[in-house]
Amino acid sequence: MEQRQLIDLLNDMSLEEKAGQLFQVTGDWFDGTEVLEQTGPEAEENARIRKSYGHLAGSVLGVYGAANIKRIQSAYMERQPHHIPLLFMLDIINGYKTIYPIPLAQGAMFDPEFAGDCAAMAAKEGAAGGLHVTFSPMVDLVRDARWGRVMESTGEDVYLNSLYAKAMVEGYQRQQGGTDFLAACVKHFAGYGAPEGGREYQTMELSNGTFHEFYLPPYESAVKAGSRMAMTAFQTVNGIPATVNRALLREILRGEMGFDGVLISDYAAIGETVVHGVSKDGADAARRALEAGVDIDMMSGVYPEYLVGLVKDGILDEALLDESVLRVLELKNWLGLFEDPFHGADEAREARTSLCEEHRKLAYEAAVKSFVLLKNEAAILPLSPNQKIAFIGPYTNSQDMLGSWSFTGGAETGAVKTIRAAAEEALAGWSVMYHTGCPVLDPGTVLEGFDRYKPSGATQEETDRWREEARKAAEEADVVVMPLGEHCFQSGEAASRAFIEIPKIQQDLFRAVSEVNPNVVAVVFSGRPLDLRFISERARAVLSVWMPGMEGGRAIIDVLTGTRTPSGKLPMSFPYCVGQVPVHYDSLMTGRPYRKGKPERYVSRYQDIPADPLYSFGYGLTYTSMELSEVRLSKNELMPGEEIEASVTIKNTGKREGTETVQLYLRDVTGSTARPVKQLKGLKRFTLQPGEEAKVAFSIGEDHLKFFQKPGLWDSEAGAFLVFIGTDSRTEHSAPLRLKKQEASENT
Amino acid sequence: MEQRQLIDLLNDMSLEEKAGQLFQVTGDWFDGTEVLEQTGPEAEENARIRKSYGHLAGSVLGVYGAANIKRIQSAYMERQPHHIPLLFMLDIINGYKTIYPIPLAQGAMFDPEFAGDCAAMAAKEGAAGGLHVTFSPMVDLVRDARWGRVMESTGEDVYLNSLYAKAMVEGYQRQQGGTDFLAACVKHFAGYGAPEGGREYQTMELSNGTFHEFYLPPYESAVKAGSRMAMTAFQTVNGIPATVNRALLREILRGEMGFDGVLISDYAAIGETVVHGVSKDGADAARRALEAGVDIDMMSGVYPEYLVGLVKDGILDEALLDESVLRVLELKNWLGLFEDPFHGADEAREARTSLCEEHRKLAYEAAVKSFVLLKNEAAILPLSPNQKIAFIGPYTNSQDMLGSWSFTGGAETGAVKTIRAAAEEALAGWSVMYHTGCPVLDPGTVLEGFDRYKPSGATQEETDRWREEARKAAEEADVVVMPLGEHCFQSGEAASRAFIEIPKIQQDLFRAVSEVNPNVVAVVFSGRPLDLRFISERARAVLSVWMPGMEGGRAIIDVLTGTRTPSGKLPMSFPYCVGQVPVHYDSLMTGRPYRKGKPERYVSRYQDIPADPLYSFGYGLTYTSMELSEVRLSKNELMPGEEIEASVTIKNTGKREGTETVQLYLRDVTGSTARPVKQLKGLKRFTLQPGEEAKVAFSIGEDHLKFFQKPGLWDSEAGAFLVFIGTDSRTEHSAPLRLKKQEASENT
Repeated sequence: MEQRQLIDLLNDMSLEEKAGQLFQVTGDWFDGTEVLEQTGPEAEENARIRKSYGHLAGSVLGVYGAANIKRIQSAYMERQPHHIPLLFMLDIINGYKTIYPIPLAQGAMFDPEFAGDCAAMAAKEGAAGGLHVTFSPMVDLVRDARWGRVMESTGEDVYLNSLYAKAMVEGYQRQQGGTDFLAACVKHFAGYGAPEGGREYQTMELSNGTFHEFYLPPYESAVKAGSRMAMTAFQTVNGIPATVNRALLREILRGEMGFDGVLISDYAAIGETVVHGVSKDGADAARRALEAGVDIDMMSGVYPEYLVGLVKDGILDEALLDESVLRVLELKNWLGLFEDPFHGADEAREARTSLCEEHRKLAYEAAVKSFVLLKNEAAILPLSPNQKIAFIGPYTNSQDMLGSWSFTGGAETGAVKTIRAAAEEALAGWSVMYHTGCPVLDPGTVLEGFDRYKPSGATQEETDRWREEARKAAEEADVVVMPLGEHCFQSGEAASRAFIEIPKIQQDLFRAVSEVNPNVVAVVFSGRPLDLRFISERARAVLSVWMPGMEGGRAIIDVLTGTRTPSGKLPMSFPYCVGQVPVHYDSLMTGRPYRKGKPERYVSRYQDIPADPLYSFGYGLTYTSMELSEVRLSKNELMPGEEIEASVTIKNTGKREGTETVQLYLRDVTGSTARPVKQLKGLKRFTLQPGEEAKVAFSIGEDHLKFFQKPGLWDSEAGAFLVFIGTDSRTEHSAPLRLKKQEASENT
Repeated sequence: MEQRQLIDLLNDMSLEEKAGQLFQVTGDWFDGTEVLEQTGPEAEENARIRKSYGHLAGSVLGVYGAANIKRIQSAYMERQPHHIPLLFMLDIINGYKTIYPIPLAQGAMFDPEFAGDCAAMAAKEGAAGGLHVTFSPMVDLVRDARWGRVMESTGEDVYLNSLYAKAMVEGYQRQQGGTDFLAACVKHFAGYGAPEGGREYQTMELSNGTFHEFYLPPYESAVKAGSRMAMTAFQTVNGIPATVNRALLREILRGEMGFDGVLISDYAAIGETVVHGVSKDGADAARRALEAGVDIDMMSGVYPEYLVGLVKDGILDEALLDESVLRVLELKNWLGLFEDPFHGADEAREARTSLCEEHRKLAYEAAVKSFVLLKNEAAILPLSPNQKIAFIGPYTNSQDMLGSWSFTGGAETGAVKTIRAAAEEALAGWSVMYHTGCPVLDPGTVLEGFDRYKPSGATQEETDRWREEARKAAEEADVVVMPLGEHCFQSGEAASRAFIEIPKIQQDLFRAVSEVNPNVVAVVFSGRPLDLRFISERARAVLSVWMPGMEGGRAIIDVLTGTRTPSGKLPMSFPYCVGQVPVHYDSLMTGRPYRKGKPERYVSRYQDIPADPLYSFGYGLTYTSMELSEVRLSKNELMPGEEIEASVTIKNTGKREGTETVQLYLRDVTGSTARPVKQLKGLKRFTLQPGEEAKVAFSIGEDHLKFFQKPGLWDSEAGAFLVFIGTDSRTEHSAPLRLKKQEASENT
């Protein structure tokens, strides 16, 4: 449809019809096909309102499947005065039917393009299933492992997250031909990833500089990549809930960043601004949100209840309403819904696309790439066929490795191959035993409101017997592989945790096993960085596999046996213990830094633990060893407009093939404000055969040296820099660089 | 001296002489009498510079004692071209010779005036010992129990801290006749109490609103009370180290707050701005600091090394130097040093004043008032004479209860009565046993740089034997009193901790004892809120005694036996565990608050622990029970200019005398920004006999309802408020109040 036609359509709509475009209902209003859990505490209260106005709603949340959606769309369009189609939206986070690793694990791939391919696959399946929009990517920067939703982020680094934001938006929206794409919805604008104490929904406490420099760029990257939608954050920014924060949404998001797509609230977030104590009542909340530029009210019920009245009473300008409605119509038009209201949804295509061989292969590759080898003492990994191996641990026989945002694929768990099933297939002829050992969670664990969580129900006798069997198997084995970790509902929304160790029952199992056999390889499942001290002190090897998706079992077996090699890097530091969070590699410089190897009192550290995290950002081993040369710069001085080259030679000095991610970090030695100790500015992946070497070169220009100065202005400052190249954020390989500028005053 | 004479003096001084007034040396330069530990990592490096310029220094750090100071002053004044006397400064934090409870414990008194009396006593002793300035009060607001220096703060609440700031400044500067006073130095401006992760010297991450509304007012309160000096903070504010932060120091401290006293850097902090990466070099640091308004360089050596040259080279305006020198001369004049350079220092007076009966009595009262009774199951406390009592724990026989800032009094530990000594004196005729049970710290504990820490040296056999003896004693006793807790060097500067439980060896002792005798009363020593779950789940009673000072032993025995009653209230929440910090009662309202007793998933909480801290701000039991009536308001509406009365009736319904602190809290139901869940706005202490009742009334005016709107503006907003009155911050007793204002727009 032409833009002019959209405007004509808008002008022909009644006020009620317009308001309808701006709210969203769940599928249950239509025919009881809703599947999504209600993710807000006020949901019951609003059901009444949604029911009475729902026939005018412009979009639907939580329905999926081509057949369902086609039926609802057809029925609705008949009733809708202008036959405007509905938008169907869903949280497709790490796959629709084919579930690949959670976003944090995708961060560990250090390969944004590959995450983009995964997103494109998810979009292809989702579109075939009738959907139009996915509430992804979540690009919230995260520094606190307690927050449950770190599993949905790509990590702690602004540069890496910005690359992922762009790649994932482009992936979802990749027009592969026809209707094989979805609209992306970048979330949660802005700063949702920084709740105080990592406590879900709590206030964000960040300085303005940190917010602008570290937290905002990934959203901007998604916007610049063309994200058609954006979602607001639950919490306040400068005291005002993001969802009604005009300065944030109109000035920064729409103004500075140039976002012209559809802005939707998070679940019930508009109505909740009353609970925040900022909106007086529902009508006030609706007015504030629309004025702030929020186009669609997800589930709070205040747009349907109040918008029409606010306009009729002259409190709200109808032009504002029109502006939002037009954006919604434009999105529907961008999706081609006026021509094909089903966006190509088709049962046969859905069946053909979902879980197809090609997609499962992609999910498998993603899993392999996401695993991070944290420890490998005496090269105990990879395993070899002449070893007697025991798999002991609750993830040995578990299909529950999809992560907490995978309900669409979770229904199909029959398609998930367990570690045992994968091993039995791959390790024909090997001597292997399998024992669950214990349930994932301690007896009596209550996960309030996680209705899909079913306790194991194992009795004490069973647990005791399992542990005894496990110990016996461990005694007989040469190597024990222990698949253990968090439950998938211990991370995700509303799953913040004050303790971040693995459940005690698993620690007890681990202790029992490692007491009788020191050759333990821990395979750790998690949705967050865990406190792994207990494991890493005792295991010979530790492989972090996150929530690896439905091909996790095969990928784990292939990496353990060396058919594939681990190459992942930590996208978020693993703290020494929960008392060390928030901990991140890019802290601002202080006046009293900890100096390695110098025991001192008056420096920035805790008295009782090491100064560094257990495993830092960017860290991850391979099955081989790599040597890096000194850092070479093509020139030691840089002028604006120029580019210099920073390079190292990397050599595989070990005996196996290895894939290494070489990382470029910069430090601004002196700035007008305190600068980060280090900042990631580039990464390159290399696969090298034993003995092989390669030159790794990064180009550095003035843009790499810019930082946030004030709203709207990023600039560089002349003076000294350090250029680091290494294989993790702790690298000390560096060379000095000087930026020369024309200005008189320099920071040396 | 007249102000005119000061100016004449200034005009007559050479440039070198002026610069001299602006730096400080330690006593060692003069004659080796230095006692203060060097509290900065760069100290050695600067020693050289201080030595070469020290003869011109305007002030001295770390020397005390009338004889020492008189000797140094006399010798110096002879050499100083204009015979200008030196200023002698020292950290007198909780007493000079007579050591009373640490500041956090003083906060627990909920009695700022009494803390003022203690400060006046410290000043009297310090002045007799030749000192002129104390680096106190520290009014940094604190929310993170990991930070070691919470021991030196009065807690988490802006209102309470502001009252203490005023009272302590007035106390130190109270002119009791003659020279019985010191100049106060409020510190650390600003925000030093909010390092990221509670990690000493780390970056402050606070929103501008929080910084202004919660962190700044206590400093302002001290300034308004007339604090003659102020000290800068180590960390950055908006990216710029506080010590060279012109906007912070010139605009806020000197401008908005009107501070016209002497501003000193913290230890080596000016030079450390180079390490921060903000100053280019030492000369740049010196220039920036002086331009920002820092008058005295404490120990970094950059003022002596560079100031003269900077002026000679025309880089620094001599007028700026003159401004700072004049402030230093004015302070010396305010102290009367031009008339009496010894400020009345006198060996005989020092000996007479120090540790005198009157002072020890004050220290005793302060200790009694600071104890917080956290638990008292089945009224196991107070103890009674017919019980067989065992004191078991490392603090039974310890004199080490003065806190980490008490070296001046620490030398006199012979004056400290242990719990055992106090009990033996007070409990004549009772049946009492005493056992140390275990050392305070785990074997092998290293407290890096805490040179005064001496490990117990107990062997494993000794420890085993002690524990066995303890267990045996516990079996024989009716009640076991266990004095245990942190070591005094586990809190204080550079003593941040990632674990905040008591040392494991004490937990083991506690377990061993409580297994054989459930009637355990834990007496907990600490410099911070601890994770007390292990103790509080198992003990019948828990009494928090902080670091109680030299009269702690007697005070503890008297409170345990009911000779005196506990009345302290927590000035800082005790978290459930370290994974819950930062936790404070005055969080801003969120959109998804936890609702007590309603198990819900999508609310602000951790999945694995209770939503509330173990013990909240304002909490503390008495030996009796109190009943409060409903909250009554004299009027439900308030207009600007009016005052209303909010009151309750409080009745002692128990069988013993009790002292209760009734607390007034307000909530602004709707505001232009999210407001705190509750804010303390008043407190009143009442002692009631059994059956006695009293009316407690608070006056509320518009000022109570104002909050930070923007720099320089605090204002109230018309609309709904809730008035709470209760005995801790969790109170739900409230009455609604409405503020009416003339303005058209209201937040309802």
